[in-house]
Amino acid sequence: MAKATPDLMERIVSLCKRRGFVFQSSEIYGGINSCYDYGPLGAELKRNVKNAWWEAMVVRRDDIVGLDSAIIQHPEVWRSSGHVAGFSDLLVDCKRCKGRFREDHLDAMACLDREFCGRPAKVCREEGLMTEPRAFNLMFETHAGPVKDSASVVYLRPETAQGIFTNFLNVVNSSRMAPPFGVAQIGKSFRNEITPGNFVFRTREFEQMEMEFFVPPDQSDRWYEYWVEERYDWYLRNGVRPDRLRKRVHADDELAHYSSGCTDVEYEYPFGWGELEGIAKRGSYDLEAHAKGCGKDLSFFDEASKTRYVPHVVEPAAGCDRAAMTFLVDAYDEETVTDEKTGKSEIRTVLHFHPRIAPITVAVFPLVKKAGMPEAAHKIVDELRDAGIRTFYDEKGAIGRRYRRQDEVGTPYCITVDGETVEGDGSVTVRDRDSMGQERIAPSDVLAVIRQKIKAWRRA
Amino acid sequence: MAKATPDLMERIVSLCKRRGFVFQSSEIYGGINSCYDYGPLGAELKRNVKNAWWEAMVVRRDDIVGLDSAIIQHPEVWRSSGHVAGFSDLLVDCKRCKGRFREDHLDAMACLDREFCGRPAKVCREEGLMTEPRAFNLMFETHAGPVKDSASVVYLRPETAQGIFTNFLNVVNSSRMAPPFGVAQIGKSFRNEITPGNFVFRTREFEQMEMEFFVPPDQSDRWYEYWVEERYDWYLRNGVRPDRLRKRVHADDELAHYSSGCTDVEYEYPFGWGELEGIAKRGSYDLEAHAKGCGKDLSFFDEASKTRYVPHVVEPAAGCDRAAMTFLVDAYDEETVTDEKTGKSEIRTVLHFHPRIAPITVAVFPLVKKAGMPEAAHKIVDELRDAGIRTFYDEKGAIGRRYRRQDEVGTPYCITVDGETVEGDGSVTVRDRDSMGQERIAPSDVLAVIRQKIKAWRRA
Repeated sequence: MAKATPDLMERIVSLCKRRGFVFQSSEIYGGINSCYDYGPLGAELKRNVKNAWWEAMVVRRDDIVGLDSAIIQHPEVWRSSGHVAGFSDLLVDCKRCKGRFREDHLDAMACLDREFCGRPAKVCREEGLMTEPRAFNLMFETHAGPVKDSASVVYLRPETAQGIFTNFLNVVNSSRMAPPFGVAQIGKSFRNEITPGNFVFRTREFEQMEMEFFVPPDQSDRWYEYWVEERYDWYLRNGVRPDRLRKRVHADDELAHYSSGCTDVEYEYPFGWGELEGIAKRGSYDLEAHAKGCGKDLSFFDEASKTRYVPHVVEPAAGCDRAAMTFLVDAYDEETVTDEKTGKSEIRTVLHFHPRIAPITVAVFPLVKKAGMPEAAHKIVDELRDAGIRTFYDEKGAIGRRYRRQDEVGTPYCITVDGETVEGDGSVTVRDRDSMGQERIAPSDVLAVIRQKIKAWRRA
Repeated sequence: MAKATPDLMERIVSLCKRRGFVFQSSEIYGGINSCYDYGPLGAELKRNVKNAWWEAMVVRRDDIVGLDSAIIQHPEVWRSSGHVAGFSDLLVDCKRCKGRFREDHLDAMACLDREFCGRPAKVCREEGLMTEPRAFNLMFETHAGPVKDSASVVYLRPETAQGIFTNFLNVVNSSRMAPPFGVAQIGKSFRNEITPGNFVFRTREFEQMEMEFFVPPDQSDRWYEYWVEERYDWYLRNGVRPDRLRKRVHADDELAHYSSGCTDVEYEYPFGWGELEGIAKRGSYDLEAHAKGCGKDLSFFDEASKTRYVPHVVEPAAGCDRAAMTFLVDAYDEETVTDEKTGKSEIRTVLHFHPRIAPITVAVFPLVKKAGMPEAAHKIVDELRDAGIRTFYDEKGAIGRRYRRQDEVGTPYCITVDGETVEGDGSVTVRDRDSMGQERIAPSDVLAVIRQKIKAWRRA
């Protein structure tokens, strides 16, 4: 198994670029700090992550509906939510090197001045070269409309959640949902982080998968427990190794003033444990804050009990880029494999993705580019695509090399059309990514066999 | 059929709010000009539109791959592409009323001054009250990082296309594609329009579905023709009425200087014909512009012919919000239906969506909330969801009212579980949205019947 050595992350980043998962954004212009573009396979990976989340959170449930709110909202939304006043980091300026640092990161930073270059920034602090800390708001600001003044300032949302709270009444009135029920949303958010980093783990532009679950106040605790278990389990169901996943309950002094509980799902990355998702009890804070801000009643009237109350909220909030990276890091392996014929050993790089997460589910190869094999292969491709199975056709290069190329991008099944297929009994081989075992099956069984394998897949 | 009267659009907008397709964004704060949030059904509608596009453009094809590039890119990207210098409207300021107007829209605008209020703005122009026109760039500007100065300016992308051009080499190198091949992308773009309007037809924040098809220069014409036909046909295949769809070839004076041809697919909205999608021959303009801007060679070396060339581009660019609205407007109908028993007539509001586009494909109802019917209904719900069919369960209200509610949101099929299901032969009724006809089928046939109906669906 690939060891979590310091350069493991570099090898994964390198694979991501080489095979088209993730590119540095604007790379031909020298790149831009912590911005990334998803390449052909990365775009599919991210789609699969989002679809798996939407399927589990919306499609499969009678008690959750979806939403897709705008990135640019009324600026009052962010005043009421507390983001304008409080969503900030404390920054200090060095009078000498002119660097601007996060106060709580000074220990890890180095002075930018040539003379002192490399000495810890906190020494500059101790010598009095730093200004007093000032609050720096993390929201990106821009202007809507033709006039650039304070009245036209709008923000790029720093989270998707507020778009759910502001639509609480709209959803209740249009969909007839009653607590306990949830509203789920996937979309881009923006935070002007001073120190982004660790590949796509922390970027200024990122995609969130958030769900706000509205409950009667006395059900908050049990739904919180339910969602901690359910969200933790979602990663396991999608193939993440249990020994790299843990739950971490926040200490009281980590909680926001309105929150009475928060648990992070954490993953052990090559750079250490990091937050993958947070499940928080937010009480009635958000709806109350907007009710106060907009002057409207955001309570719910329960017809059965004839009572009116402001629902409490339990929020599982996940990062989509972070989840995609986690599936990738978790799936990554370097294995020593020995060729049975030659006895030679080599390193096989493989991504052991769950078939639901893998960018390509099945690759179909004609053994050679003639003798009717491409046509027979395309017939299988069409059948699998008709069934909604992500299928890739490849006729280039030696067959062993084609298998290795699919291992490296995590394709769980390869089907090869050969002489026996077109001139013999019509059978094809199915090759398994994880075991590297091959079996011959009848062409009429292809779809059923692949479906069965997807369903039965377990991490080795 | 619903007539395209002036208030038809208002009735559609009203349905959108009432049933949860589209809400005005930040409505509890009085809303924000031309910003919209997609409600539970709108979010599903938009997902279906995007999935139908991705399926046709990427999943089903061997010659197109996907991409998902960042909204915030290196500012040099927009200098090279010409957007910094040229992506602007001409605006004039009225010295008296302080209003700022698009020069080419003066005829339609009114003065904002109280004294002259309502008089055409062009009169102010004639009287010399207006400034000379100035270029106003339509890109949203913001700052990345802790320092707000000219060096930290970044833009929100005004189109997704440039993220494809800047990744041309990355895609070629990682995916082994060779012209003719395409790169497809779906994502948000932002344009600071002075006069947005017509519901989600023109908004400042919008989602695009763009594909750049790279071809050898001598194949540009035939691929252009291919893509005009293919994209026009895509709307028809997804149920749009042919009599409301047309192709409009741009006149020479409408073309960008680098473009040698452009065709719009237009739709006849209640407010007139409007552009739904543009298919353009862009030549080698974009790759050449970036090659010049970044100093790198963005040409392609063809191994077969041993020639090197800069590929030409054919671009079908569609708006996702516009497409979603088009499917909605196109599906909308008000029909007079007569009750066979009572002889009474009433207006039925119905959305004749293609089953692939409809937010809900099947609704399952227990006739009453007892006698094992909810359990039997849930068994059908689970089976359909296992098969990937979007299924909604509803047990509230009279059955006729439940059918009408589903008609109004465009659900093509309703399945009802009744006494015969739980105590008789087990059969259920399937009710068709378009014909309103009902038939009884065996429960074991449900999945096959629904699949067959989806496949065979044609617009009446």
